[in-house]
Amino acid sequence: MQSSKTPKETLAVATKVVLPNDTNPLGNLFGGKLLAWMDEISSISAHRHAQQICVTASVNHVAFKNPIRLADIVTLEAKVTRAFSSSMEVFIDVYVEDFQTHTRTKCNEAIFTFVAVDMKGSPAQVPTIQPETEEEMLRYNGALRRRQLSLILAGKMLANEATELKALFVQS
Amino acid sequence: MQSSKTPKETLAVATKVVLPNDTNPLGNLFGGKLLAWMDEISSISAHRHAQQICVTASVNHVAFKNPIRLADIVTLEAKVTRAFSSSMEVFIDVYVEDFQTHTRTKCNEAIFTFVAVDMKGSPAQVPTIQPETEEEMLRYNGALRRRQLSLILAGKMLANEATELKALFVQS
Amino acid sequence: MQSSKTPKETLAVATKVVLPNDTNPLGNLFGGKLLAWMDEISSISAHRHAQQICVTASVNHVAFKNPIRLADIVTLEAKVTRAFSSSMEVFIDVYVEDFQTHTRTKCNEAIFTFVAVDMKGSPAQVPTIQPETEEEMLRYNGALRRRQLSLILAGKMLANEATELKALFVQS
Amino acid sequence: MQSSKTPKETLAVATKVVLPNDTNPLGNLFGGKLLAWMDEISSISAHRHAQQICVTASVNHVAFKNPIRLADIVTLEAKVTRAFSSSMEVFIDVYVEDFQTHTRTKCNEAIFTFVAVDMKGSPAQVPTIQPETEEEMLRYNGALRRRQLSLILAGKMLANEATELKALFVQS
Amino acid sequence: MQSSKTPKETLAVATKVVLPNDTNPLGNLFGGKLLAWMDEISSISAHRHAQQICVTASVNHVAFKNPIRLADIVTLEAKVTRAFSSSMEVFIDVYVEDFQTHTRTKCNEAIFTFVAVDMKGSPAQVPTIQPETEEEMLRYNGALRRRQLSLILAGKMLANEATELKALFVQS
Amino acid sequence: MQSSKTPKETLAVATKVVLPNDTNPLGNLFGGKLLAWMDEISSISAHRHAQQICVTASVNHVAFKNPIRLADIVTLEAKVTRAFSSSMEVFIDVYVEDFQTHTRTKCNEAIFTFVAVDMKGSPAQVPTIQPETEEEMLRYNGALRRRQLSLILAGKMLANEATELKALFVQS
Repeated sequence: MQSSKTPKETLAVATKVVLPNDTNPLGNLFGGKLLAWMDEISSISAHRHAQQICVTASVNHVAFKNPIRLADIVTLEAKVTRAFSSSMEVFIDVYVEDFQTHTRTKCNEAIFTFVAVDMKGSPAQVPTIQPETEEEMLRYNGALRRRQLSLILAGKMLANEATELKALFVQS
Repeated sequence: MQSSKTPKETLAVATKVVLPNDTNPLGNLFGGKLLAWMDEISSISAHRHAQQICVTASVNHVAFKNPIRLADIVTLEAKVTRAFSSSMEVFIDVYVEDFQTHTRTKCNEAIFTFVAVDMKGSPAQVPTIQPETEEEMLRYNGALRRRQLSLILAGKMLANEATELKALFVQS
Repeated sequence: MQSSKTPKETLAVATKVVLPNDTNPLGNLFGGKLLAWMDEISSISAHRHAQQICVTASVNHVAFKNPIRLADIVTLEAKVTRAFSSSMEVFIDVYVEDFQTHTRTKCNEAIFTFVAVDMKGSPAQVPTIQPETEEEMLRYNGALRRRQLSLILAGKMLANEATELKALFVQS
Repeated sequence: MQSSKTPKETLAVATKVVLPNDTNPLGNLFGGKLLAWMDEISSISAHRHAQQICVTASVNHVAFKNPIRLADIVTLEAKVTRAFSSSMEVFIDVYVEDFQTHTRTKCNEAIFTFVAVDMKGSPAQVPTIQPETEEEMLRYNGALRRRQLSLILAGKMLANEATELKALFVQS
Repeated sequence: MQSSKTPKETLAVATKVVLPNDTNPLGNLFGGKLLAWMDEISSISAHRHAQQICVTASVNHVAFKNPIRLADIVTLEAKVTRAFSSSMEVFIDVYVEDFQTHTRTKCNEAIFTFVAVDMKGSPAQVPTIQPETEEEMLRYNGALRRRQLSLILAGKMLANEATELKALFVQS
Repeated sequence: MQSSKTPKETLAVATKVVLPNDTNPLGNLFGGKLLAWMDEISSISAHRHAQQICVTASVNHVAFKNPIRLADIVTLEAKVTRAFSSSMEVFIDVYVEDFQTHTRTKCNEAIFTFVAVDMKGSPAQVPTIQPETEEEMLRYNGALRRRQLSLILAGKMLANEATELKALFVQS
């Protein structure tokens, strides 16, 4: 097993067409459908990193900005941003090609966390991440703050100990 | 239209059986499937509150604690916790009945935010929420802090202005 | 195992939105889709009563009165009405919330029969039912007549022996 | 439009393989899945008879005798047995080919009733049925008794007026 | 096991209604959906011939001529045309009944090849085919030329050795 | 509209996990499922080239070599190889990552043809293709021979006129 991987090595891409059953009465894609697609592609990215079964541990804040419409083409690109022992943070960038204008716009980003497990379901060690681009570096650094927020929300860390996160609120 | 509703009036319940296609190679429910179920039932709860089409605006932190297994019965209960103009925060409590031991345990909770829209897709005013039980009151109060966090993460509010949230990090 | 349960203890609820794929060219819900939903939720109700695997034994008369339309919200409520050794009769009440008027009406009721089986597929004993409300009492009594009709139709009982059922046709 | 058709002209056949998602934890086909398949193929048979949109009006007694297993091949054959003004009774015979022994057995029969409607949803006249074989004749005659039972259960006919049906219970 | 079967003994029929999710933005059936239906019914035909598990080996040229529309009824009829040791060529004829005019037209034909395998996945011997009708005879003869073309395209036969196929191009 | 595009500009990628419902009793992916996936991703590639609705016109020879197994990760990469007026030939390369060994192998390639149509369903002109790599050049040249074979099989061209194709059989 490699001891370290780049985010690029963990890239997983899925391209989908929005079908009638994926839409609400306004003809726009359901949020739940997009969430399921995000989970599927980010679990493949995590799997490529860990080379173990990966189970969804948490979903961080996901915002649905612009409606995606019937017949639009949706591309999801998932990459591992940082690994912590047996867990991995995965970023998903979502792009939409409008079915009629053909313009491609980024419409969404989301963050999922996965845990690698062995066949008995016990956590398994995963390689570390070596960010390469500026964006990958930014996301790598942010991952630590998000992990602190996550631990606080789960009651596993005191707000005062989350140094990196606290800095956002307290400009000392 | 009622000007105010209780969380109880917005309750929506879904009961599902975990089928083979919902599971990973360990025989456990995919996170993405549960997310889609959460979105569906919470959008019905929001719809009952707003009596308008409701579209998913965001997903707050969701943690997947215990694996849910093939053939388990999953019950999702969704209630609106608080409404802000045209948006609503919905809490989803997830219970699992083990297929063989028949014990029922709470295994998950999640928070989704919805926006009510009219047939043209423009935001529409919704009734306010009148919490009744102690738990509903706690969730009603927490909703304000979560909204502040959400606005900060979206870059629409400065961390310093989020008074209720900041109090978590700064014991002055 | 409890020797007896109330219908309320066996209540199972499912809430669904009618999607494009569930509809015929008139935009109304297919009967077959509703039947599948009825089977799923009533098997969960039977499972809650029996705490065993429950397999569908028969479907009694189901009438589809008013069409249910695209985007309508459908709620199915299933309760065991009576148990006979290893079999259970389950009533399903179906309510529809009109997607645009938001009125809720009862649109259907159906009766399914289930048999509890062990892991080898052999019939397994189930608790009896203790009806509480007036409606539950009426359904409990009717269950006997329906069982007689069912046994006659299956050629396992002579029409003359079905005392309760015969009384409907012969006002002696 | 033909004024009369034979059952043979209305034959509709569907062949399916039982997939993992169609099965319960014992590996047997769910009753609800079979009901949905029955509704689909019988509505096609009714459509071939009426040449109009046909909506499910009711399901008569359906008994599930032998379990159908994963990977078995299921054949459904549907034929209109009798037409009454705008409604049609359809018989569905279900055959199963065992995945490993390859023996073919009849495992089920069911009766559905459909109503033909025009594009506004109003009932539309359909051709009559001209039974040809002995079995078709038997089913044609039985259809009248079943219709009486159905009208009684719906409260639209008095038990005493259902002459053909009453004869089953009273050997005068 | 029979040493030989007629194509008629291998007939498998499937009837489907085109649902919203099966269609593109023009309201016509997706080619991929029809391909999946073709594969399912032809594998059942092969299974009826071989009485073994049959896996898809190849798809020969399939042309999609006339669009099939939402709500149309599609009938697929599959028959084994010829068997070679452990492989079988299956013809699928596709008929469409127009949802509004009710005319039935043949709209497509396709050829799939299957290999029979035992439970370990090794190729298994299958009965030969005894064509009966003139059409069955024509298809039986054509099967040899198609097999040659297939072997050439797979690089397993030299074009010069494909005597029957070569005759199409070289009128000596 | 660009008058010409490179194959690279038309690349469409889909990544999937094989789920229980996608498999036969041996636990291998159904051919029909893979065909549907191929059709979906190649229609997206054609759409990216034509910027019009694209409908499947034909499927050329597809061979299924190695079985793909439950839980394997399947990646499909589709690129337009050549355009003829309103039609496009699309190549699909299929790669499989074994769920347990994590080796990635090319397991399949397929060729689909699409026609671009306007909103009335009439054929619409598409850009030409400018191949860049050696492989793209080879496929570009082969596309002409495949088109000739296709026209011969459809009875629209005489074998003798298919100069490029004929050369395969006659070494003059």
